[in-house]
Amino acid sequence: MRAEIITIGDEILIGQIVDSNSAYLGKSLSKIGVEVKYITSIGDDRTAILAALKLANSRADLVLITGGLGPTKDDITKKTLAEFFHDKLVLNQKVLSHIEDLWKSFIKQPLLQVNKDQAMVLSKAEILTNQNGSAPGMWIEKDQTVFVSMPGVPYEMKSIVSMELLPRLIQQFQLPIIVNKTLLTQGLGESMIAERIADWENQLDPSIKLAYLPNLGRVRLRLSSTHLDKQLVELKVQRAIDDLLPLIQDIFVGFEDDQSIETIIGELLVKKNQTLSLAESCTGGAIAERLTSFPGSSRYFIASLVSYATAIKEQVLGIDGQLIKKHGVVSEEVAILMATRAKALFKSDYAISTTGNAGPTTSEGREPVGTVCMALASPTGIYSHTFQFGTSRERVINKAVNKAFELLYNELLKNASKEV
Amino acid sequence: MRAEIITIGDEILIGQIVDSNSAYLGKSLSKIGVEVKYITSIGDDRTAILAALKLANSRADLVLITGGLGPTKDDITKKTLAEFFHDKLVLNQKVLSHIEDLWKSFIKQPLLQVNKDQAMVLSKAEILTNQNGSAPGMWIEKDQTVFVSMPGVPYEMKSIVSMELLPRLIQQFQLPIIVNKTLLTQGLGESMIAERIADWENQLDPSIKLAYLPNLGRVRLRLSSTHLDKQLVELKVQRAIDDLLPLIQDIFVGFEDDQSIETIIGELLVKKNQTLSLAESCTGGAIAERLTSFPGSSRYFIASLVSYATAIKEQVLGIDGQLIKKHGVVSEEVAILMATRAKALFKSDYAISTTGNAGPTTSEGREPVGTVCMALASPTGIYSHTFQFGTSRERVINKAVNKAFELLYNELLKNASKEV
Repeated sequence: MRAEIITIGDEILIGQIVDSNSAYLGKSLSKIGVEVKYITSIGDDRTAILAALKLANSRADLVLITGGLGPTKDDITKKTLAEFFHDKLVLNQKVLSHIEDLWKSFIKQPLLQVNKDQAMVLSKAEILTNQNGSAPGMWIEKDQTVFVSMPGVPYEMKSIVSMELLPRLIQQFQLPIIVNKTLLTQGLGESMIAERIADWENQLDPSIKLAYLPNLGRVRLRLSSTHLDKQLVELKVQRAIDDLLPLIQDIFVGFEDDQSIETIIGELLVKKNQTLSLAESCTGGAIAERLTSFPGSSRYFIASLVSYATAIKEQVLGIDGQLIKKHGVVSEEVAILMATRAKALFKSDYAISTTGNAGPTTSEGREPVGTVCMALASPTGIYSHTFQFGTSRERVINKAVNKAFELLYNELLKNASKEV
Repeated sequence: MRAEIITIGDEILIGQIVDSNSAYLGKSLSKIGVEVKYITSIGDDRTAILAALKLANSRADLVLITGGLGPTKDDITKKTLAEFFHDKLVLNQKVLSHIEDLWKSFIKQPLLQVNKDQAMVLSKAEILTNQNGSAPGMWIEKDQTVFVSMPGVPYEMKSIVSMELLPRLIQQFQLPIIVNKTLLTQGLGESMIAERIADWENQLDPSIKLAYLPNLGRVRLRLSSTHLDKQLVELKVQRAIDDLLPLIQDIFVGFEDDQSIETIIGELLVKKNQTLSLAESCTGGAIAERLTSFPGSSRYFIASLVSYATAIKEQVLGIDGQLIKKHGVVSEEVAILMATRAKALFKSDYAISTTGNAGPTTSEGREPVGTVCMALASPTGIYSHTFQFGTSRERVINKAVNKAFELLYNELLKNASKEV
């Protein structure tokens, strides 16, 4: 089953929003064995929509359309869909009742005609209920292709996909199994890894695809394969991984399909009944934000002091102002004290600190843009490092966050092996 | 000039990465007057790449291709490009020297054959230097369409675009002016705004396009127009905005093309020489992270205490444990004390606090998932609120962050008007 995703909206084309809906849909379809072959983004424009629908009809079995719906956008997209399907828009009483309920219970603002108009749907379409909003999903078939149109607001679209669309696709079609396994590595570049595992790659079962995904100092290796027989394909991929792991054991962090490095770290800490705190400066809360974006982080994450101003490093963490003057606020000396003091203040087993200059200009620190000092205080010692992460602010912050997780992960493994 | 963006990579189709390159390219092209009409994503697959190139050739004047390059990916994409352009790959000595320099100065790992192979380029292509990596950009023309292929690693692609591609496009083509103005509003839904400004919208100059972009409790109104005459189009859009502003003055936050609400808040604080600190719990550092993602935030942002564990609220902020037990950690009483104590501890003029349950399960708090209490301590008083932000963890956190900025923005405006 070949799928195409069409996202509609001028805001996508001018880059005002990043199209994250496509990634969500791609991931959801992959999981149930539907292969996405194309993603197309077009503007709120009748001609472009008609052309995209026609092309998708010719090359895909399933077409998911998001965007272009909503009280002020309905017009073009729905009329164009009606034109494409030789259909007309009719009032759906069930959708109207749902909208009226929604307005009475949650929105609590006057129900306007434009809101009621969202109950106008294609007469040939089957309705997929939108629990989180007023614009319903529509399922409509043409020449053996299934088209599903959904609103573009991510959490409305997601509820339609998970509660209505996926169950229906699984029930209606015999879908193959797609197995994707991603191995996260750290510390070695893409080409060095490729050279190291070249023999393994050359002998890889041809039904298994291998991809290298480098990003901010980490390389992910993705193995994927498709088959109707679940056991067979899982076994094949597992065997390939069993052969691969010994070759990369020094750089292997974990499997990323199931978990990110944040959750791997979290589980290691929870297992040992240990806790983590942070003293962040140049990362500005980004490490804490990443940790707490995952449910369950309260089991091991205690606190972060984002001591952005130098004065806070003195007044709250009690670091000597003279020492800061002497070494500079961006220094391993200050980083070590930040981590030590945070560990003591928050009574945690581990503490990580960051102090650096994320740019774009050198302000308080004397170090050039991109310099980041970090320290890690653990139950067994304290370590500090200085890194140079380039000149882009976003990149400096993200690399520092990744590096913090890498340092902590290595330390947790080291301590675990000591305990054995 | 009509542009198409083609992004190549299986990882995009299976949703392993969100394609942010397209948004960056869309924004960059819009700014110089090139209209993006299509964005297409395809896998690392010869047939799909050939079909996409052919289609783009037929409908676009400029085709930007990202991805599919890099030491382990080069093969398919570059060979397919050579096939499409009836060209062959040749060693470019200048690119090779650049790669050798890069490895000697920065990478400091052995230079492998796969790295050297990145200097193999299309013989007909002009090279766009990649300052940040080894795979160069290639500019090649066919049937009056300009094709530009670039690596997919965002910061490599971005350096090619800003330093090589955009200057060249501006020089080589007479580009029209595209004016996009985005007005950020808060506090009123999309349909209510639409009804309120219906008369204005009906009288809007037909060359100006209006779009409603709702997201997490805020609606953006985007006006856009295109013309060869810069002054004329800017005047037209400005007149439309002048007519619109009086209709939405109670919900208007600011212009978003130039600045986000974070930078608007930052400038208000800097102008008044005032400072901000935070005591975050359920937002887990996300408010600090958003503020510090902008350069210059150190001029007004002092610190955030991410007091994730209840014990830290007691031990570091000195909130009475009995009071927390009595009211629950998710309560306006606790929020008020968090903000008050943070303001005192960090000696800031304003302090915002968040305490809530982001879900997915109720842990320490007795309040249901999605409940968030916030307080804002200002020089003139302290205010607290309780919100219900739904059941999705990501959404609860993001809505709380947005709400914090909204509360602070309104307070800053109120205090500003008092001072007049």
